[in-house]
Amino acid sequence: MYPNCINEIIESFKSLPGIGEKTAERLTFSLISFDKDKLSSFADAIISARDKIKKCSVCGNITDDDICNICKDKERNSKIVFVVEKSKDISLFEKINVFKGKYHVLGGLISPLDGIGPEDVNIDNLIKRVETDGIEEIILSLKPSIEGETTMQYIKKILEGKNVKITKLSTGIPIGTDIEYIDSMTLEFALEGRKDI
Amino acid sequence: MYPNCINEIIESFKSLPGIGEKTAERLTFSLISFDKDKLSSFADAIISARDKIKKCSVCGNITDDDICNICKDKERNSKIVFVVEKSKDISLFEKINVFKGKYHVLGGLISPLDGIGPEDVNIDNLIKRVETDGIEEIILSLKPSIEGETTMQYIKKILEGKNVKITKLSTGIPIGTDIEYIDSMTLEFALEGRKDI
Repeated sequence: MYPNCINEIIESFKSLPGIGEKTAERLTFSLISFDKDKLSSFADAIISARDKIKKCSVCGNITDDDICNICKDKERNSKIVFVVEKSKDISLFEKINVFKGKYHVLGGLISPLDGIGPEDVNIDNLIKRVETDGIEEIILSLKPSIEGETTMQYIKKILEGKNVKITKLSTGIPIGTDIEYIDSMTLEFALEGRKDI
Repeated sequence: MYPNCINEIIESFKSLPGIGEKTAERLTFSLISFDKDKLSSFADAIISARDKIKKCSVCGNITDDDICNICKDKERNSKIVFVVEKSKDISLFEKINVFKGKYHVLGGLISPLDGIGPEDVNIDNLIKRVETDGIEEIILSLKPSIEGETTMQYIKKILEGKNVKITKLSTGIPIGTDIEYIDSMTLEFALEGRKDI
């Protein structure tokens, strides 16, 4: 019923997570109401992403160069490395603006049930960095799930004896959240990790 | 922090209604994980939309031709015309698959407070169609708001004496909705429009 290009845009939006038929149509009609320049730059950016985006050869973060902006940044401390699952996680930490070290993006978590082993995630490069860059501390920031814990334990084990401190983010009750809404496993961890005040 | 093309895609998503910073980032990262062919066809479709999409010279619906597919369709009854605000509204009626007439897209509603007068919406073409195409019935399907009602009254007045039946969709309680959740104005209309059973 719609012109082909409109159907194509609707289908593309529908392939994105959390976007159903109605939302895809609504977004498409908003998109085509953009002015021509804005549509051009959107399309150009998609083509650039298609052609230029690759993984940083050092840390695995997305980049349009061989090495990403964060790895290139000489102001940042190379001795401390935040290990995250996805490139997107980096932005969460960059926004709070307290961490001035480097990152390492695994690109996935070890999950034997899904057939994802250590060789499928970007751990070899992490070991290389520890061995050659003199990393002093690795902060593991993977989600507190079975896969996250498995991956953290694996990294801990494989780096044993390599003279690098390995920490992970604390688990507990999020600031500002009523205890009423916290699941029992989080409560259990919060209790276990209780601190003197 | 991200490569430029990624920032550009995030910004474009953020310009869409209902999409904030976090969702825009999430959608962008999903988008760039599409395979290259899919990214190409998405970008191509946006460029086609930019270059080819225009308004049907008959009914005002979006089209990539001079006349839209619905106006071209000789199987459809030209004597009965559904008047809608936006092209997108057409798909709602096409999906229920009971209407086999034609459409007319106003592209807006009369709203004196916003400075939108009858000359700003596609009413002249509707009058022309009534005068030359022998339209027998116009079904007004505009939203039941002040602007919608104003527009419907204006259309009714301007077509007076032109021998065309003008109807509008009934207002009332949506099927399957608990009366508890219905606003008082809808209830008032539903009461006014009550029917024998």
